[in-house]
Amino acid sequence: MPSKFIFTNILGSYVFTENYKAVEEILFKDIGQFKEKGIYEDKLRQKHGNLAKPEDNDLHNILLFFKNRKYFPGFLKKNLELTKNSIKESVNNDLFIVQAAGAIGEIDKTLNLLTKRLREWYSLYNPEASDKIRDHEKFSSLIAKKSKKQLLDEFDIDEKDSIGSDLKEKDISAILSLAAQINSLYALRAHYENYLKELEKETCPNLAAILGVAMAAKLIEHTGSLKRLAEMPASTLQVLGAEKALFRHMRNKKNRPPKFGLIHEHQLIQKSKREMYGKVARALADKASIAARVDYFKGKFIGDKLKKELIEKFKIEY
Amino acid sequence: MPSKFIFTNILGSYVFTENYKAVEEILFKDIGQFKEKGIYEDKLRQKHGNLAKPEDNDLHNILLFFKNRKYFPGFLKKNLELTKNSIKESVNNDLFIVQAAGAIGEIDKTLNLLTKRLREWYSLYNPEASDKIRDHEKFSSLIAKKSKKQLLDEFDIDEKDSIGSDLKEKDISAILSLAAQINSLYALRAHYENYLKELEKETCPNLAAILGVAMAAKLIEHTGSLKRLAEMPASTLQVLGAEKALFRHMRNKKNRPPKFGLIHEHQLIQKSKREMYGKVARALADKASIAARVDYFKGKFIGDKLKKELIEKFKIEY
Repeated sequence: MPSKFIFTNILGSYVFTENYKAVEEILFKDIGQFKEKGIYEDKLRQKHGNLAKPEDNDLHNILLFFKNRKYFPGFLKKNLELTKNSIKESVNNDLFIVQAAGAIGEIDKTLNLLTKRLREWYSLYNPEASDKIRDHEKFSSLIAKKSKKQLLDEFDIDEKDSIGSDLKEKDISAILSLAAQINSLYALRAHYENYLKELEKETCPNLAAILGVAMAAKLIEHTGSLKRLAEMPASTLQVLGAEKALFRHMRNKKNRPPKFGLIHEHQLIQKSKREMYGKVARALADKASIAARVDYFKGKFIGDKLKKELIEKFKIEY
Repeated sequence: MPSKFIFTNILGSYVFTENYKAVEEILFKDIGQFKEKGIYEDKLRQKHGNLAKPEDNDLHNILLFFKNRKYFPGFLKKNLELTKNSIKESVNNDLFIVQAAGAIGEIDKTLNLLTKRLREWYSLYNPEASDKIRDHEKFSSLIAKKSKKQLLDEFDIDEKDSIGSDLKEKDISAILSLAAQINSLYALRAHYENYLKELEKETCPNLAAILGVAMAAKLIEHTGSLKRLAEMPASTLQVLGAEKALFRHMRNKKNRPPKFGLIHEHQLIQKSKREMYGKVARALADKASIAARVDYFKGKFIGDKLKKELIEKFKIEY
């Protein structure tokens, strides 16, 4: 029995006769209406009674209808809008996690570079402080806050016995400007760590519970998105970041396969015995993989349960 | 004719008889007195009349006098003080130039790293701005100052047409914190450039006149001190920084020797024709070498004269 068809594309919703003539159309003004096309299709259905979805053969003829040049500018404009819209909406928390984790990595590199310089430079003035304060962050913050005399007093060193030179005000100020910059980089790093924590609370609370905020971020950064991480076998997650060792093993069976990649620094692995490394890494990757999948599909929070299972299995607190 | 001797070491000034017995001594309280030993020797001379400096043979006997164990702690303590003092006084402007030039180099690396991150991150929000503003410093300072709307208005782009997403306040703030950090790194870099300029005004005004502040600093950083730079042949100065190419040439005569190293970026070379590179580099290195020597020996300012000679020889302004 020939009937009328309903057909919707980016331009609007149409009713076609069995001869493929358009008898009614609702044109979309913008992408917003296209996205709510159901509403407009329902309107047409109510008016025209039972409308069929076109089958392959009918579809072919209906598409020929749109081969008219007069529709081309509309298609171009609307498709461009649609693409822009998709790009806009593709931005999600994953991307922020990738960026923030990347920024932290780069700030770390920067801090390393600049702190080495600071220590060398400041040692012309007060070498004793650089010797006594081994921690980089503490060093940079202390020398910015305290005078040479105050620091030497703390180490019970007489200022006369110091082998550092007495510098001019402007020379000291040049050094302390670097210290101030480094301190503000540390503050920015702390800010990003906090930001990551908030992002992960929304995006991947389970993964963060199992691996910790920093490591979860690194895995997402490495794969590019939570989606890809969730789609991965647990055994791939286990060796993420150890690709070089893995492929060396695959080329050349003499080398053993790597036991872990990025998850290497996890407390559970660090605190276990060497001969257990492989077992622990496999279990950890299994749980992390489950967590990533639950997170990706917006499941409930089961992070504490998964973590507890790991702790009980290996009798290691973390 | 046997006579009395005068002998001074780090412990004090002594008068010895011809039998090498100490008849009088002025002990030094600290390194300051040792450094002004002339005063104390004069005092002894006035009292004892003509005192001879010991010859080799006498010296041998006098030194035996000090082989007594009772002097050892004194020697140890005073020598330690002397060494500390030398270390203290070894700090001079050269070292600050080395440090500041090094710091600028590291800040540049840092800026490269962080600006790449900033552009990528900010492009999630406002990709048009990153495309339109190619200069890194300008980019970072503009996005910190202006809102997305203000920037898009400047490029005549409707906010609706932008493919950037509308981010939450905290996501934008995370990005702009990085921009603020980058801006403050640029400010620190400018501060150090100024500082270098001041240092070079005192230390190597001639070298700075010929090569510019930044390049003069790089050469001093590369060699470690103005002294070493002044001691170098001009032909070595010419290829400083191109050691790899130079040694490749020396191992394997197939490769031509390098024409220049660090001085490559000098305007005089950049503005001359390719076939003149070698000539210009040699002349530039000659003048720079003269300048470095005049600077090291605290000679007069002849930088403008040397520069003028170069400009006239090659008819290139810089």
